Amino acid sequence: MKHLGAELAEIRAGHAEIHVPFRKEVTQQHNYFHAGVSGAIADSACGYAAYTLMPADSSVLTVEYKMNLLAPADGEKLVARARVLRSGKTLKICAADVYVQKNGAEIHCATMLATIMCLSGKSDRAG
Amino acid sequence: MKHLGAELAEIRAGHAEIHVPFRKEVTQQHNYFHAGVSGAIADSACGYAAYTLMPADSSVLTVEYKMNLLAPADGEKLVARARVLRSGKTLKICAADVYVQKNGAEIHCATMLATIMCLSGKSDRAG
Amino acid sequence: MKHLGAELAEIRAGHAEIHVPFRKEVTQQHNYFHAGVSGAIADSACGYAAYTLMPADSSVLTVEYKMNLLAPADGEKLVARARVLRSGKTLKICAADVYVQKNGAEIHCATMLATIMCLSGKSDRAG
Amino acid sequence: MKHLGAELAEIRAGHAEIHVPFRKEVTQQHNYFHAGVSGAIADSACGYAAYTLMPADSSVLTVEYKMNLLAPADGEKLVARARVLRSGKTLKICAADVYVQKNGAEIHCATMLATIMCLSGKSDRAG
Repeated sequence: MKHLGAELAEIRAGHAEIHVPFRKEVTQQHNYFHAGVSGAIADSACGYAAYTLMPADSSVLTVEYKMNLLAPADGEKLVARARVLRSGKTLKICAADVYVQKNGAEIHCATMLATIMCLSGKSDRAG
Repeated sequence: MKHLGAELAEIRAGHAEIHVPFRKEVTQQHNYFHAGVSGAIADSACGYAAYTLMPADSSVLTVEYKMNLLAPADGEKLVARARVLRSGKTLKICAADVYVQKNGAEIHCATMLATIMCLSGKSDRAG
Repeated sequence: MKHLGAELAEIRAGHAEIHVPFRKEVTQQHNYFHAGVSGAIADSACGYAAYTLMPADSSVLTVEYKMNLLAPADGEKLVARARVLRSGKTLKICAADVYVQKNGAEIHCATMLATIMCLSGKSDRAG
Repeated sequence: MKHLGAELAEIRAGHAEIHVPFRKEVTQQHNYFHAGVSGAIADSACGYAAYTLMPADSSVLTVEYKMNLLAPADGEKLVARARVLRSGKTLKICAADVYVQKNGAEIHCATMLATIMCLSGKSDRAG
């Protein structure tokens, strides 16, 4: 995340928002944000949103995600907003939407569904 | 759809809603609606929503879908609501949510993302 | 499953195979097997494959699945073959492929990835 | 891809393989390869595999992908192998598996299904 210049812009119970300002390093050949960046911040935002609903000593594990790309991410800032759709004890089902901001407007670039696992007092994948 | 007792309750540009009233035949061992029914009506609702944005001689082909199950579908009526997130010429990216109605309340049971293809003047899968 | 005329043709550690013979009731307008039938038996085969690797008192819960449709299911018998890719204590990640048999050949119709949860000594969704 | 130190190790009709040697920059807190790297090279390998079956003036667009994470990517080299499951004129349905190599063995870390679109003689997303 640090590598991408991403910042956690908002976090509250069941929600998280991550921003990435435009930088040449996170774009592809057309100067749009790279789709991999949309995927990475959507997944991270889901993890943070899920984590707000877990006990303090938990760690977060992404089980799976699916993303549809909707439009080119042509703009000044990339924004991922995630929310928990279902908060089970072990699994949190999350959705995230990615928008690009340009000239004061937002375009919907991508949408993700993700399954996040809560590992209680563990620090490694144990699925 | 007919087989499931499903009815198209609403259709307008980019949206569709399908209902299935409770019947013993569409439930599983706990008398909840079967998850397969949620999947079938969510997929159908996505297809109808996509079709509203296609030329008249088109046919609809489901390319893929992904569904997360969120809660048991315990209730009197199952409702799938679909909307088109992105309407390209060839592909429509759709989302659907499935709710179960019980005693006047709605519970969110499942959520789907689907990619629907528009086949112009063709009647078979040609991907 | 019974409703679809489906039979569990094979089951062994980490694998399951389900067959559906051609019947008018499970086809769509072109006399192909309905895509919903492919989805239902792929999901069921994943559940059975996962169950072979769970303790005896467990129950099986489908967390999510994603399916790509590859070709029309035009043939005499529909066959879903599932295998467990990763067997964690709580989650089993499974893949299934659906084939249609026609005149002695098999065509690959659909492919699924699914996340199946093991509920120990419970009988309901508790995610 | 360049940024990740990724190299296209093999490409032939309907197949592609991408390698990423271990470098501190592509790992997370436990010194495993970051899951985002697995996702990025799996998606890229699907795009390359699809591209081998497209006309020369085409460009490649990822419509959607779904990935299940199977095991921590703890090793010396990360390898993504993609293959085209179904090659339609407009859409190529692809699967990719990601392995980590350690002490001469391979561990299966992740699996992806992706839908790739062929844009004929166009250079932008037009879905």
